[in-house]
Amino acid sequence: MKVFIAGIDGYLGWPLAQYLTARGHEVVGADLLLRREWVAEVGSDSAIPVYSMDERLQAFRQRYGKELVFRKGDFLDYAFVRDFFADFQPDAIVNLGQMPSAPYSMIDQQHAVFTQHNNVIGNLNILWAMKEVCPEAHLVKLGTMGEYGTPNIDIPEGFFEIEYRGRKDVLPFPRQAGSFYHWSKVHDSNNTMFACRIWGLRATDIMQGVVFGTRVDDESDDPRLHTRLDFDQCFGTAINRFCCQAVIDHPLTVYGTGGQTRGFLPLRDSMQCLTLAVENPPKHGEYRVFNQFEECYSVRELAQVVYEVCREMGIHADVLHYDNPRMEKQEHYYNPDRKHLIDLGYQPTHDVRAELRIMLRDLLPHKTRIAQFREILVPDIRWDGTQRRSQVIEAEVAK
Amino acid sequence: MKVFIAGIDGYLGWPLAQYLTARGHEVVGADLLLRREWVAEVGSDSAIPVYSMDERLQAFRQRYGKELVFRKGDFLDYAFVRDFFADFQPDAIVNLGQMPSAPYSMIDQQHAVFTQHNNVIGNLNILWAMKEVCPEAHLVKLGTMGEYGTPNIDIPEGFFEIEYRGRKDVLPFPRQAGSFYHWSKVHDSNNTMFACRIWGLRATDIMQGVVFGTRVDDESDDPRLHTRLDFDQCFGTAINRFCCQAVIDHPLTVYGTGGQTRGFLPLRDSMQCLTLAVENPPKHGEYRVFNQFEECYSVRELAQVVYEVCREMGIHADVLHYDNPRMEKQEHYYNPDRKHLIDLGYQPTHDVRAELRIMLRDLLPHKTRIAQFREILVPDIRWDGTQRRSQVIEAEVAK
Repeated sequence: MKVFIAGIDGYLGWPLAQYLTARGHEVVGADLLLRREWVAEVGSDSAIPVYSMDERLQAFRQRYGKELVFRKGDFLDYAFVRDFFADFQPDAIVNLGQMPSAPYSMIDQQHAVFTQHNNVIGNLNILWAMKEVCPEAHLVKLGTMGEYGTPNIDIPEGFFEIEYRGRKDVLPFPRQAGSFYHWSKVHDSNNTMFACRIWGLRATDIMQGVVFGTRVDDESDDPRLHTRLDFDQCFGTAINRFCCQAVIDHPLTVYGTGGQTRGFLPLRDSMQCLTLAVENPPKHGEYRVFNQFEECYSVRELAQVVYEVCREMGIHADVLHYDNPRMEKQEHYYNPDRKHLIDLGYQPTHDVRAELRIMLRDLLPHKTRIAQFREILVPDIRWDGTQRRSQVIEAEVAK
Repeated sequence: MKVFIAGIDGYLGWPLAQYLTARGHEVVGADLLLRREWVAEVGSDSAIPVYSMDERLQAFRQRYGKELVFRKGDFLDYAFVRDFFADFQPDAIVNLGQMPSAPYSMIDQQHAVFTQHNNVIGNLNILWAMKEVCPEAHLVKLGTMGEYGTPNIDIPEGFFEIEYRGRKDVLPFPRQAGSFYHWSKVHDSNNTMFACRIWGLRATDIMQGVVFGTRVDDESDDPRLHTRLDFDQCFGTAINRFCCQAVIDHPLTVYGTGGQTRGFLPLRDSMQCLTLAVENPPKHGEYRVFNQFEECYSVRELAQVVYEVCREMGIHADVLHYDNPRMEKQEHYYNPDRKHLIDLGYQPTHDVRAELRIMLRDLLPHKTRIAQFREILVPDIRWDGTQRRSQVIEAEVAK
């Protein structure tokens, strides 16, 4: 299949390009390389060195024996999107080309506006370009499990049948996102659902859990082909951040009680799931939603597992609790479905400890690199709009 | 109270400024005067002459014996919004400053992007400015009943308690909007709900039905104080459009079967309801939703009523059905609640026929003015993205 990846320079986009190519798909991609700038802006860098796009493309050519067509450009530039789609005529478009951080969107007015503008208009341009030049293509759009928030009922996959005052209907499941970033993804989901309805486009909307890990299956040893790994308060998600903290003997930063429960999945599972979506398109006019995660864990449990795996590997790790800079429920019911991907053949990895060992081994050589950013590992972007570094609220060496 | 009106030059904003002033409130407002340009862009003009803002402000001064502070500016310009709020320190902010047309948002990619950018970022700027300089203020934000679409169950006011798989929660009622414009209002509702939750702001989100009419209570005879009235396919909503069509002996343009049922309310009721919201603010941190309409009617029924009132007044009117340029259910269940405003004292006008007689009397002197636009009264903006003028599908002289 011909697959267009928006955001091909990112944490998911770069390994996905390789994963799909290895399976025989023809991949092209676009990116404005902004992720590199955002991480620098918040005072950090990827733990795994990221090579220039030219170097990445050269390594790609050497490994796969063909060119990866890449264009640098902005999804806010409609002509850029439309012309690229028109030239390539993709069968599938994977939209990873967005600003993906909740805290970054909460820094201030400018960052909130940038996030919603960038994500909503970029996705809207993709929808219009599909309608105009490749209406048969399948959009695989990355949403987030964070769109749902933490309702006190089970979370179905996008839609649910309900009875209300004696009448029934199948309706979109209500969204209760927790940041201006997460809301931008809800806005995108809504616009995408609507475009499928009125134009007969087809889309898979992936409500993805938190991804962790450094590796995908059959990855090359060429460092130019490796993906980035962030650990700062904005772009470093729970497990990745914990592992980077552990290798430099910084306490693992659990926010609040750590009772926040989320779906998680290793990077290799994300590749497997996105590929299942790409290779099994919905029918025309269908908008389907996949909840994409391997297992649900509380942040507290994850810190404990990282602590234990570190101990086995002789790495010293403390777990500390910090006052939560976010506004979110810290203890709550959480029971999302994830049947659709299983039905398509998703085989979850399950062995989180094995994945953590690989990650920690990959990160240890970059200890000095990570240690440069020791001072920024405790969060200071707060949901109330102030900037104050969190304090330790309850020191607890995990057992 | 000190009331800031965003969009003070509009159909609702201009009479609301007067209505609130007459009740003793101190009103200021801002507008970029874009509505005037949009209507011109789609080849039309207001049926009721609209005076320049200078002339409007002069008439206001003469009638009310005081200045109306007005600043021309863009809600996309954050500094403009923040500085105005900081200077005025409003008790209430009424956000009417948006692009309000579904067909306009469906013209093409540019119009869809303009609509969502303008409405979403403008409202986001208002939320941030409130947080930064007037967090005690009350936001009265105009949404639309169109956010809900036409579900097969009753429509509560914003939230509902549901049981799902044996567990209960109170959740936002799912939205199923019908145009990129309507979705922009959903996005705004979501951002506003979130801002109340994290910052303790307070807001009333008005899911307003379709407004019609030329007059508010106690209106001056000074034509500079009258509000606009649009009748083109973009800005002319059902009843207003029908009345303008009738006075120039153009068939009333019913789309499809006309079974589309919506909530409607006269302009004077809209003023009454918005004022009730302003004068009865929610508590801090509360996000409440009001469904605001007087009665539900199908478009077919409304055309029939307009036909009958016209006949009583000696005006000849035909009702014709045109193939529907929109994608929407034409026959459907529709039963929204509207308890919150009634509880606050809303007294619905009920006498639609009396309102229509007033409107038609107001419009008859402008017959020649309206007749200039005879050629654009049949819609050609289609939801499938093409531009083709609708055809008569079933001629029916209403009885």
